[in-house]
Amino acid sequence: MSTSETLDLSLELLRQPSVTPVDHNCQTIMAERLAKAGFHIEPMRFGEVDNLWARRGTTEPVFCFAGHTDVVPTGNLEDWKTQPFQPEIKDGKLYGRGSADMKTALAAMVVATERFVAKHPNHKGSIAYLITSDEEGPAINGTVKVIETLEARQEKLTWCLVGEPSSTHRLGDIVKNGRRGSLNAVLTIQGKQGHVAYPHLANNPIHQASAALNELCNTVWDQGNEYFPATSFQISNIHAGTGATNVIPGTLSVTFNFRYCTEVTAEQLQARVIEILNKHKLNFEIQWTLSGLPFLTPVGELVKATQHAIREVCGIETELSTSGGTSDGRFIAPTGAQVLELGVLNATIHQVNEHVNVDELEPLARIYEEILVQLLA
Amino acid sequence: MSTSETLDLSLELLRQPSVTPVDHNCQTIMAERLAKAGFHIEPMRFGEVDNLWARRGTTEPVFCFAGHTDVVPTGNLEDWKTQPFQPEIKDGKLYGRGSADMKTALAAMVVATERFVAKHPNHKGSIAYLITSDEEGPAINGTVKVIETLEARQEKLTWCLVGEPSSTHRLGDIVKNGRRGSLNAVLTIQGKQGHVAYPHLANNPIHQASAALNELCNTVWDQGNEYFPATSFQISNIHAGTGATNVIPGTLSVTFNFRYCTEVTAEQLQARVIEILNKHKLNFEIQWTLSGLPFLTPVGELVKATQHAIREVCGIETELSTSGGTSDGRFIAPTGAQVLELGVLNATIHQVNEHVNVDELEPLARIYEEILVQLLA
Repeated sequence: MSTSETLDLSLELLRQPSVTPVDHNCQTIMAERLAKAGFHIEPMRFGEVDNLWARRGTTEPVFCFAGHTDVVPTGNLEDWKTQPFQPEIKDGKLYGRGSADMKTALAAMVVATERFVAKHPNHKGSIAYLITSDEEGPAINGTVKVIETLEARQEKLTWCLVGEPSSTHRLGDIVKNGRRGSLNAVLTIQGKQGHVAYPHLANNPIHQASAALNELCNTVWDQGNEYFPATSFQISNIHAGTGATNVIPGTLSVTFNFRYCTEVTAEQLQARVIEILNKHKLNFEIQWTLSGLPFLTPVGELVKATQHAIREVCGIETELSTSGGTSDGRFIAPTGAQVLELGVLNATIHQVNEHVNVDELEPLARIYEEILVQLLA
Repeated sequence: MSTSETLDLSLELLRQPSVTPVDHNCQTIMAERLAKAGFHIEPMRFGEVDNLWARRGTTEPVFCFAGHTDVVPTGNLEDWKTQPFQPEIKDGKLYGRGSADMKTALAAMVVATERFVAKHPNHKGSIAYLITSDEEGPAINGTVKVIETLEARQEKLTWCLVGEPSSTHRLGDIVKNGRRGSLNAVLTIQGKQGHVAYPHLANNPIHQASAALNELCNTVWDQGNEYFPATSFQISNIHAGTGATNVIPGTLSVTFNFRYCTEVTAEQLQARVIEILNKHKLNFEIQWTLSGLPFLTPVGELVKATQHAIREVCGIETELSTSGGTSDGRFIAPTGAQVLELGVLNATIHQVNEHVNVDELEPLARIYEEILVQLLA
């Protein structure tokens, strides 16, 4: 029998094989606890995605915990030391898919809320939960749709704490107060197929593109700024060729991604890429997908409450950061809410043998509770 | 009823669906005609490959016709105007898979031989046939094995005429008197997989390799020489990426091919490639496959006889060339034989709607016959 309520609820959630978009009762487990703590429970199912909206109180300000119950696929089971959906503790570490990203944070939120509500039954404003099971997937029927529903009925969030694993070396060392934008492109370079023995009758798109790709890989897009690291460019996929060794391929397909800061816009990046491709006289098509605008939460009530809570619980000064991947915070920030991300260590997310340090679970619940105290007590 | 013996035999061979390694009776059809013309017939089956060795005469010099009965697959049938194995004549063109590469040449060889033998039953030396059904495939159990067998019993070829489609604009305009070497490589560049949002924790092999690939694509390997065009480098396949847009791939795989002339050796090319890869500090593995050494037949009896025959029949001066793809000539030349390639137009080989000009079939038979006259009458 564990002596940690946060660990107990974490274990219960980790036993649910909730690979995107399947929630597998996680939201029901959370909702039952929140209902007992006085929350109004409102499931919002869109398409095949379960979402949970829960709220205690009717007035503003509204403090919202946000997160997701879905997890990424396990990967190769043979590479796991444990069963991914049978959580186990070994040497002080809790192993299981979703242990870092982000079921332990969900457990810490619920436990923190229960404790806060028990001590402050008549707290200021409202506490809310915005939980989805489609954060790791297409993210179409999840947080976006819940936010649309709330906006339509003019239900506003003042502060939102997303439980994404933000910590790097120790709990609370990093809080994310913004995210870079994410811009994807699928580039197709057209050549002319032919036989390798007759290159003058063909036009090898790999050779045509090699100088342009080299230039794209080596371009400095900006220097970043006070809040953001420099914009980064990464090619994630490159494919050309029929498999035959004697055939010059007719097309080259390249997929790349920008994580960009507030020093440039998506439109500027697109123009610079096209300029490089044109300079090298390529015959190309390009399809752009803007998967997230950059957002930033400057220092204010939420940041200060969080810095204070981490100082109290962990004894360290936290660092504000905007690096790393996108999160559902990108859908919440445009409503005007202050959005922060704070959770456990992210070292093993999406990997095999995903794990967290057990002795960081109760401190995380205490941080969350202290933030509630700072803002709503 | 056709008035061309060469066309008639071509049609008979083209009706056989002899996709590599299947001969589908083509060699039997040829062998029956050659046996009637006084040839000793020796089928040589290796593995699943039918080969035919036939010889008329026991003394030297030996003039050998070489070729293959197998054809490449049809490709998409819906793109064909005709049925690929139901040869049809439309607007003076004979359509069918193998019509250019190289069943019409086989028919012309047999008809030319029959006519020559009828006029010169006591010709000098010997006439031979080396026919395989594995030229378009792995080429392991075909010409290589027949040559090994002949070498083992010290049976030598003096002159060898391969019926590959060498002509470019009109019959006889080009004769191949050599071929470039062909060197293949599979290059694997090792990086470190990761998330596109954390590029500093990963190592993108596409980015690492971009400068080296650009340099390989733009290197001038040599200038060629009197007989050979410059060595060419072509990347045929490039692949990296999991399909996901947010994952930096762990490895990049590149397949490339050199068609190289006698100005460099395969070893020199390998050393230069590795020097470039090392200069760019890549973590790589490379596997080389030498699929053919270069060979050259300088001007001599065979070249002169062929030039004379083309002048007589076509009224043009033929051009010697070493460009284009590999052929089984690469296996025959090392025995010391003079090897030439001469056949119909190669514009449609390996394509859908492969075809030849019907009015070039009898002239090809006459050229082949005149070469026999020049060398053995």
